[in-house]
Amino acid sequence: MNKKIKVFASATISNVGCGFDTIGFAIDKPGDIVSLSLRNDGIVKIKKITGDGGVLPYEIEKNTATVGILELLKNYPNKNIGVDVEIIKKMPIASGLGSSAASSVAAVFGMNKLLNNYFSETEVLNFAVKGESIASGDIHADNVAPCLFGGFALIRDYNPIDVIKLPVPQNLYCTVLYSQIVIETKQARKLIKKNLQLKKARKHFGNIGTLVSGLYESDLSKIGRSIEDEISEPARAALIPNFYDIKNAALSAGAYGCSISGSGPSIFAFSDSEITAKKIGSAMKKIVDKNGIKTTLYISKINPQGPKII
Amino acid sequence: MNKKIKVFASATISNVGCGFDTIGFAIDKPGDIVSLSLRNDGIVKIKKITGDGGVLPYEIEKNTATVGILELLKNYPNKNIGVDVEIIKKMPIASGLGSSAASSVAAVFGMNKLLNNYFSETEVLNFAVKGESIASGDIHADNVAPCLFGGFALIRDYNPIDVIKLPVPQNLYCTVLYSQIVIETKQARKLIKKNLQLKKARKHFGNIGTLVSGLYESDLSKIGRSIEDEISEPARAALIPNFYDIKNAALSAGAYGCSISGSGPSIFAFSDSEITAKKIGSAMKKIVDKNGIKTTLYISKINPQGPKII
Repeated sequence: MNKKIKVFASATISNVGCGFDTIGFAIDKPGDIVSLSLRNDGIVKIKKITGDGGVLPYEIEKNTATVGILELLKNYPNKNIGVDVEIIKKMPIASGLGSSAASSVAAVFGMNKLLNNYFSETEVLNFAVKGESIASGDIHADNVAPCLFGGFALIRDYNPIDVIKLPVPQNLYCTVLYSQIVIETKQARKLIKKNLQLKKARKHFGNIGTLVSGLYESDLSKIGRSIEDEISEPARAALIPNFYDIKNAALSAGAYGCSISGSGPSIFAFSDSEITAKKIGSAMKKIVDKNGIKTTLYISKINPQGPKII
Repeated sequence: MNKKIKVFASATISNVGCGFDTIGFAIDKPGDIVSLSLRNDGIVKIKKITGDGGVLPYEIEKNTATVGILELLKNYPNKNIGVDVEIIKKMPIASGLGSSAASSVAAVFGMNKLLNNYFSETEVLNFAVKGESIASGDIHADNVAPCLFGGFALIRDYNPIDVIKLPVPQNLYCTVLYSQIVIETKQARKLIKKNLQLKKARKHFGNIGTLVSGLYESDLSKIGRSIEDEISEPARAALIPNFYDIKNAALSAGAYGCSISGSGPSIFAFSDSEITAKKIGSAMKKIVDKNGIKTTLYISKINPQGPKII
């Protein structure tokens, strides 16, 4: 049995326009690294956190990475197993890119590897979802599932959790613009109304079906048309200065679709080549630059695999 | 140019559990036959309607078949074109099986054939949707589109209309039980609330994505799991005596999924063989027989083609 492991888990884009709390996908970068070192005294301890600007908690019941591990260990027969944890944040927090999901998945995935895959894929998913819920304030899996399985994942049901893995078009590129403004997931979720007009829900029905069809057909026009949002984008756009200008700039630069990633402030756009993906990034960044807000661009294909052992 | 044509258009199942106003599919039987005979005096006339029990209107502005034709002729340059129409209803009216869509599609499809396919597929769809709206009191295309194109059809958008054709699993069978109780589409639609809880909408998001994935993968388990309804079934079940007993009987007999077709009273169930489809039919019929209500069973594969010229 290995006693140490180092795992990279990637950022994820959730909501994807039409798929509120339902669809997410993984990108290549950025992501988090979690290092684990087994102990034989039943103690779980966070030894070090770097890259978080000092905001993440060292209390194991409050950190997404260790909450997931605690959930896993609760279900493991040997109560002497403990672990030292080091978290290297390589991505912005509260960015809408599934930062807490990445830490939770890297930790739980790595822990299960150290225990020789004692738990099934679905059990690992459930532990990581529990870990992530500490940060988001709610049980949802549209970041955790694609982070763990790679590619596109759709959450059919939560009770029990039922994840549908969807195919990844080879020529699909994603541009992500992260602006350095802080949006807390818990706060952003409060903006979403508890009821939805049926006619708006129906638009989502049509678009989700079209997005799934587009993924199976590698039809980027279908995928692009489906990126419409009646729920999250109208509520959260106000939190992102010039959001609609940024979106229009992306579409004018050749994006098939563009919307807010998760709770924002990150914005994603789909395209069919790296050149266009970069062009879209520059066009979006130009708008934000005018406001003097710092930005980071990530250009990536869809990440088809889950976490990587490094 | 042919002067006469006779067209069969089939029944369709809409809603399909999760796909309110969004997804429908065509079955082999029952269906309607519309005969058309061109005139050169610009007059549209219904010469004969049979099989309707005398309930369908002869006024051309009130009959779904002729409303669709009038819409088509409005857009045709030669104003001397008229037509004599005969409608043979071979399926129950107000059954939830898209009876008005079948008449409208047969009429408009046939008329376009007589005019040497002057109009595009999408134009024909729009004319037929207009025709159908006279009966349902609303513009929706989840019966008309699958009736016209065959197979499964998903309506992404209405403005302009955007239909996504979905694949048909080879081993998918459908059992339909029609009970002779009258439910008017317009009345049934009034039972549907204008707002939906977001958490119920989210279940539909997950299920629609799963249904579409199941169709691409020919995965009947996925298709079956997706047949859940938070909108139409809870509201309309009360109109069908013993609905939940019938549904449970279908599931116990091997159905992958079961729900109300359109506004009801017809109930559909999916299975993977003709033998099981028949077994499901008998089990469902047994429940309704106890109430002394007359029933008709239709066992069919999915109809992959549109209307047939006969």
